[in-house]
Amino acid sequence: MQPSYTSNFAMTLDIAHYIHAQGQLIEQQLEHLVSLHHGYHQKLFESARYALLGGGKRLRPILALATTHILQGDCHLALTPACTLELIHTYSLIHDDLPCMDNDDFRRGKLTVHRQFSEGHAVLTGDYLLTYAFEVLANHPQLHPIKKTQLIGTLAKRSGGDGMIGGQVMDLAFEGKQVTLEQLKMLHRNKTGALIVAAVEFGGIISDANPNQMNHLRQFGEAIGLAFQIVDDILDVTEAQAKHGKAIASDVINRKTTYASLLGVEQAQSYAQNLYQQAILALKQIPYDTSLLVWLADFILKRKY
Amino acid sequence: MQPSYTSNFAMTLDIAHYIHAQGQLIEQQLEHLVSLHHGYHQKLFESARYALLGGGKRLRPILALATTHILQGDCHLALTPACTLELIHTYSLIHDDLPCMDNDDFRRGKLTVHRQFSEGHAVLTGDYLLTYAFEVLANHPQLHPIKKTQLIGTLAKRSGGDGMIGGQVMDLAFEGKQVTLEQLKMLHRNKTGALIVAAVEFGGIISDANPNQMNHLRQFGEAIGLAFQIVDDILDVTEAQAKHGKAIASDVINRKTTYASLLGVEQAQSYAQNLYQQAILALKQIPYDTSLLVWLADFILKRKY
Repeated sequence: MQPSYTSNFAMTLDIAHYIHAQGQLIEQQLEHLVSLHHGYHQKLFESARYALLGGGKRLRPILALATTHILQGDCHLALTPACTLELIHTYSLIHDDLPCMDNDDFRRGKLTVHRQFSEGHAVLTGDYLLTYAFEVLANHPQLHPIKKTQLIGTLAKRSGGDGMIGGQVMDLAFEGKQVTLEQLKMLHRNKTGALIVAAVEFGGIISDANPNQMNHLRQFGEAIGLAFQIVDDILDVTEAQAKHGKAIASDVINRKTTYASLLGVEQAQSYAQNLYQQAILALKQIPYDTSLLVWLADFILKRKY
Repeated sequence: MQPSYTSNFAMTLDIAHYIHAQGQLIEQQLEHLVSLHHGYHQKLFESARYALLGGGKRLRPILALATTHILQGDCHLALTPACTLELIHTYSLIHDDLPCMDNDDFRRGKLTVHRQFSEGHAVLTGDYLLTYAFEVLANHPQLHPIKKTQLIGTLAKRSGGDGMIGGQVMDLAFEGKQVTLEQLKMLHRNKTGALIVAAVEFGGIISDANPNQMNHLRQFGEAIGLAFQIVDDILDVTEAQAKHGKAIASDVINRKTTYASLLGVEQAQSYAQNLYQQAILALKQIPYDTSLLVWLADFILKRKY
């Protein structure tokens, strides 16, 4: 069931197959991590599984696994830490969808957690997934305690006040305001980019990357994180609800500035292409076969258009 | 400024003075931990400090410090971990006060975070404090990595789905329903009790308590955690808003069953007294001078009436 991590697989690998296979491993592990409990609080695990399972691109855990792979680290050891990135990502979506935030009714083609359950329950489900990510890392049976604290510190920093949450606060602050390109970059570098940087850092930590390699990984993560967001903005404009699983152009409804609205679709695409080149350049500084990450970057940039 | 942790202080100590002195240390450390940042997300740190500083009994961090003290552990080392319990407690209050949860306008005598700032901002402020607690533990400069992961695992477990958040889910599920004493105990053992157990466990971890001592500490924590909640319920009925800093009997408004409503004030008081005896009995099994925890338990039980 698990793909074999052989050194020459990169030459023959089909990237879509790789993503699919890793996605299945991640799905199984998430299913295993967030199991059903019984008792008065059973609904908490039902709503967590509702939000977590059966959807999502699993971009962050796949990036963590692929980074571990190119650095010849232990991908089996990386699987559970990679999944904690998805726990954090999912909690942030649940809270982001709340009526007091983006007020979205649909996510990944189904009702959002607060619409399917209740608002209070959605707040608690997010809190649970957030807290649980750290419990999973702290209790990992194989990881060395030093690596555990590095992973926990990285995850908390990138998803915290000077990372993802900081970006969400900017998002609230900028709503309905005229935003400059610099402000928009700052917002997305935190809101979306920080957790993508955490994903490649996770791979680096698991694989004992040296500080120099870590820096290049971060540059790669920052560039594709921003490119990913730009592609998302473009898709939000150009794709119909049926394909995207979200109300069309919800950012327009929420009076949010996007790369597409600020630069126009064509210039936004060319900016994403430029970031892709920066990402590839960063990978070239890493003394390993980085083709897998190049292909992933390519896949991210070209998805759905 | 810092109290000296001498072995014979217990004989001469005035418990109110101890609580006051520890409270000041905790306040200073919290002030230091959550400092103001500048930039587009500055308001996040303003709201976090608004919620965190200048109020609160600091029961959980004080319990962690007192437990460290009786076990002759390093109280200076325990200070920052103790403060992370208050970060978690404060986040839970912010989310608990939200309109979709308890819908409280006042907390600790001032407007709740969502009333002072906004609902969306309150969700994010809670998320930030929750995440930051784990970052602080992971990055503690003096603690051994093994102790860090023990503290992080304990904090996440006690405040997570099978702990505090589980209790909050029960609270939502029981709202407006007839609840039995057993259900009420289960609710509060999780919602309030779990983080109080974490506080004494923190002291045990810092001080290298053995498994036997840890068990007795947990029994103590469980008993006073429940006693604390009962006293809270009684105060909610008997105290005016001016003294308690919260709308009178908000639990009645929210159609919640409390120990006071289920047992009556007198029987609830006698139940709390019974739990106090259980707590003292657990302490007697620990081969140290535990007077400080006895006095704290006494103080908790007798506060305000």
